[in-house]
Amino acid sequence: MKRLIVDMDDVIADATGQILHYYEQEFGVRVPRESLNNKEELEGFPDHHEKIQQFLYRENFFRTMTPHLDSREVMAELNKKYELFIVSAAMEFPQSLPEKLAWLNEYFPFLTWKQIVFCGSKAVVHGDYMIDDLPHNLERFNGEKFIYTAPHNMHIHLYNRLNSWKEVGDRLL
Amino acid sequence: MKRLIVDMDDVIADATGQILHYYEQEFGVRVPRESLNNKEELEGFPDHHEKIQQFLYRENFFRTMTPHLDSREVMAELNKKYELFIVSAAMEFPQSLPEKLAWLNEYFPFLTWKQIVFCGSKAVVHGDYMIDDLPHNLERFNGEKFIYTAPHNMHIHLYNRLNSWKEVGDRLL
Repeated sequence: MKRLIVDMDDVIADATGQILHYYEQEFGVRVPRESLNNKEELEGFPDHHEKIQQFLYRENFFRTMTPHLDSREVMAELNKKYELFIVSAAMEFPQSLPEKLAWLNEYFPFLTWKQIVFCGSKAVVHGDYMIDDLPHNLERFNGEKFIYTAPHNMHIHLYNRLNSWKEVGDRLL
Repeated sequence: MKRLIVDMDDVIADATGQILHYYEQEFGVRVPRESLNNKEELEGFPDHHEKIQQFLYRENFFRTMTPHLDSREVMAELNKKYELFIVSAAMEFPQSLPEKLAWLNEYFPFLTWKQIVFCGSKAVVHGDYMIDDLPHNLERFNGEKFIYTAPHNMHIHLYNRLNSWKEVGDRLL
């Protein structure tokens, strides 16, 4: 069975949407998702840049994200065909650890605790395929690499691109 | 730089000592550490076996463990020579995640969050050396394997054995 490594934020969980939502609640401005395209993470907002990073330390920020469209259905099928691992670089945000675990239990109940990895650097994991939105996570991976489209990675052309969970299913199922 | 993977419970943290301590507090019996030799984990106790497993879900169980003798000094030196990762199969105990992180920050402050991995199965990590007390963690590892002596692994003769952190230093520094 081939091993597939899947990221959480901006791959199965709509982290960008959560930041847009918090920004709107805090500052009363609905920033269009498209305006973040080709900007570094957290840098496409018109103002308050120093405060956006703080959202990530708030209680329930990670617990209340929305799963990406079709991610649950496709992941359930991938889970039958691959040795599937969720690998999330969560260690920078200690409060996120139990929240991410609870979120996975709610939306991806077919995954067991044995399939979950919270780390700092992903350099330590190996497998056959990795799906991630961040180039620095893909860079040192030993297997085949897929970049999952997010506003902050539109300008990256180093890796095979997956634009939706339908495309993930078409490529890997 | 070679990559070294080090476990937490019963390698840098005295998990066995913590269980003996909780057992004594709960049942008024001081079980000698030696009486656990060659028994499966949690099975060397005279009685109350079904309750011992519950200790691991208690608040502060993981937070208040004692570091193993010399582990801090030797780890500080290993951290200069190796790409050092702590890899702990903590996902079975969700409440342990922030406790383990706080424990590492207290006793091993020279390690950064980038060097910490909490997982279910260790099959997903790779490196050059692994130090662990559990044979099933060492089994699928790709690099050189060392078993760190604990009462429940005295009967295992498959791996090079390290009996103390002095021996770890002698072998790897």
